[in-house]
Amino acid sequence: MKKASIKSNIKVPGFTFSGISAGIKQSKGRDLALILSDKPAAAAAVFTKNKVKAAPVKLAIECIGSRKAQAIIINSGNANACTGQQGLKDAKEMNAETAKILGIPSDLVYVSSTGVIGRPLPMNKIINALSSLKDGLSPSSIGHAADAIMTTDTYAKLISKKIKIGSKTGTVAAIAKGSGMICPDMATMLCFIVTDISLSDAALDSALREAVDRSFNVLSVDNDMSTNDTVMIMANGVLGNNPITIKSSYYQPFKSILNDITYELAKMIAVDGEGATKLIEVIVKGSRTESDAQKVAKAVSRSMLVRTAIYGRDPNWGRLLAATGYSGAEIIEQKVDIFINKVKVVNKGLGTNKDIVLRKVLASNKIVITIDLGIGSKTARALSCDLTEGYIKINAHYGT
Amino acid sequence: MKKASIKSNIKVPGFTFSGISAGIKQSKGRDLALILSDKPAAAAAVFTKNKVKAAPVKLAIECIGSRKAQAIIINSGNANACTGQQGLKDAKEMNAETAKILGIPSDLVYVSSTGVIGRPLPMNKIINALSSLKDGLSPSSIGHAADAIMTTDTYAKLISKKIKIGSKTGTVAAIAKGSGMICPDMATMLCFIVTDISLSDAALDSALREAVDRSFNVLSVDNDMSTNDTVMIMANGVLGNNPITIKSSYYQPFKSILNDITYELAKMIAVDGEGATKLIEVIVKGSRTESDAQKVAKAVSRSMLVRTAIYGRDPNWGRLLAATGYSGAEIIEQKVDIFINKVKVVNKGLGTNKDIVLRKVLASNKIVITIDLGIGSKTARALSCDLTEGYIKINAHYGT
Repeated sequence: MKKASIKSNIKVPGFTFSGISAGIKQSKGRDLALILSDKPAAAAAVFTKNKVKAAPVKLAIECIGSRKAQAIIINSGNANACTGQQGLKDAKEMNAETAKILGIPSDLVYVSSTGVIGRPLPMNKIINALSSLKDGLSPSSIGHAADAIMTTDTYAKLISKKIKIGSKTGTVAAIAKGSGMICPDMATMLCFIVTDISLSDAALDSALREAVDRSFNVLSVDNDMSTNDTVMIMANGVLGNNPITIKSSYYQPFKSILNDITYELAKMIAVDGEGATKLIEVIVKGSRTESDAQKVAKAVSRSMLVRTAIYGRDPNWGRLLAATGYSGAEIIEQKVDIFINKVKVVNKGLGTNKDIVLRKVLASNKIVITIDLGIGSKTARALSCDLTEGYIKINAHYGT
Repeated sequence: MKKASIKSNIKVPGFTFSGISAGIKQSKGRDLALILSDKPAAAAAVFTKNKVKAAPVKLAIECIGSRKAQAIIINSGNANACTGQQGLKDAKEMNAETAKILGIPSDLVYVSSTGVIGRPLPMNKIINALSSLKDGLSPSSIGHAADAIMTTDTYAKLISKKIKIGSKTGTVAAIAKGSGMICPDMATMLCFIVTDISLSDAALDSALREAVDRSFNVLSVDNDMSTNDTVMIMANGVLGNNPITIKSSYYQPFKSILNDITYELAKMIAVDGEGATKLIEVIVKGSRTESDAQKVAKAVSRSMLVRTAIYGRDPNWGRLLAATGYSGAEIIEQKVDIFINKVKVVNKGLGTNKDIVLRKVLASNKIVITIDLGIGSKTARALSCDLTEGYIKINAHYGT
């Protein structure tokens, strides 16, 4: 299911990418990435809600008020989090030096970091590598950038989709890494999206928030929230379309593409969860409200008992019903139907004794749990992975 | 740390106890318990908030309206949950037959079940065992009852304390089992408390709710909530004191004893968490509000990353600070101090580089994490255990 590297022919007009090794990671793998737009782009971003925020996140939150961006520089191997005043100074220096070498205003440059918490950034290594990083910029190097933002990820996460805007064809592409606090010291989910389509600030911001809510925010690997989580989009308008506004007929299709992209990336992150052997998708139907559907989807996907049962191929429908019950959503036990990969395991609140066929179904590396509450028409979905001894091993013994 | 059985000389005036094997458990161990008061007692109870409730819990919720009880019968090995109409019928029959053999009104008899979900109760075995169960009643058999309510617990949980009420000395004793949905099909945290002290209905109810809030409700093993969780207290007044009311001078001392008892039991349950090797206690100080202190204590004690790090003796203070940050509480990163068993690991939001001494400290089987938010005077605490490969093994492969 997992692979080590990535090759890509993805190009997005008006953007160049670079990913090199600056020597921050002990592995000597790529650890410094750059995304550059030929011209200032509209930008939107969503950051971690954790009150302990890494230095670069604090800086980016100030910057994004302008709704403009032209470059994003990302290092892996060090999160620059819990690093106090020194951390903030380092993030600012990284910002200023990148702006200088690119010859653009520093308020159009965003800095992002991921990796070990609580250690100072190796600034010399980063500053010394900026020239090579710039030299590496090319329209076809998005795969290098995707490689360079990985920490404990076992493969690079990259996706692109095309969309017709009148007679023109726009491109949306994105790279992502790691899942929440999936990894201990190597925290952080990061996602950077670029498009040549022109959108109004409000449309871009609103579409991004909806996409994040429906993808990364319904994904859980261990329910911990990183100090560095960042999802950012740049839209440089090189396509030359009339800017898409919230009222434009192209807004819904654009949102749909963006939702697909972030949901696919969230799936890739779930599959790559530490120690994971299976992707778990929870689909809730028949809810009175969307909020209730979300509560059930999250409770079931986060349940350690559900996740260990699926790992062990244990046809344990009682855990699914119990998690549905404690989700906080309005449910009527006698109306709940539950399916695992199309096998009905609970009918109107009672087990259907399908253990033998279920054990076969649970051998699959993709498990879809469908819960029909039977009392309404609202739906929601959530993503997770199975919980295995591998997760414990990686996280218990990481620092030792 | 764990032991298999229990001997006890605990007696509570006016109460008798029994615990026998009815053959419900495959192990042939004790699986049917009875607690009987010589006379009708004041009673209070707290039940699971899970909307999927086991049949006996539904019955007990109706009964407790009377605030009276005389007997509690508990079976282990089968939770009588997700069993539909048949389950309710069985619980009612268990109630009626117990009342009949004891010769007391059925509305003074409470039924409680714990064990496998979704399978019908073996009613014949239970009914056939009632006569032996009654014959086993004795003032000194509380240990047998504690044994009989265990499921995956590795040792019985039993505690008692004395309290002076004027010239008299009252006794409060309690038995408990298993931790929340600590175990898959063998769900449920149960606790039954008995005392010869006389209390008003309101005082008993209020003291119990506070005690549960500060003990079992701050305990997490896997964050799943069972369909059967029940904490119940009976106060038969055999001591002959003036009934303690909420305004009585003995109310605070009684609450204090009850809080101690339930907190100690919660600790025993945490230590006995599946696969656990260490008890984790999180103490939060210096919070602006008690609610914020509770949020931090719960977030840190529940963090899978914190719990795996402690298992692995990984001096990973970044995870503690990150969990504090995402708890939802008001915090100021630069004011937070964190201690692990008296070693200061975070000073004003920054690491103190105590990794070497910390590794020694983390070898202890009791880990106390103290978090001083440094912005107020409110406190809270929470209990948990470390998260190990053992937990995964037990829960992934239980049904197979």
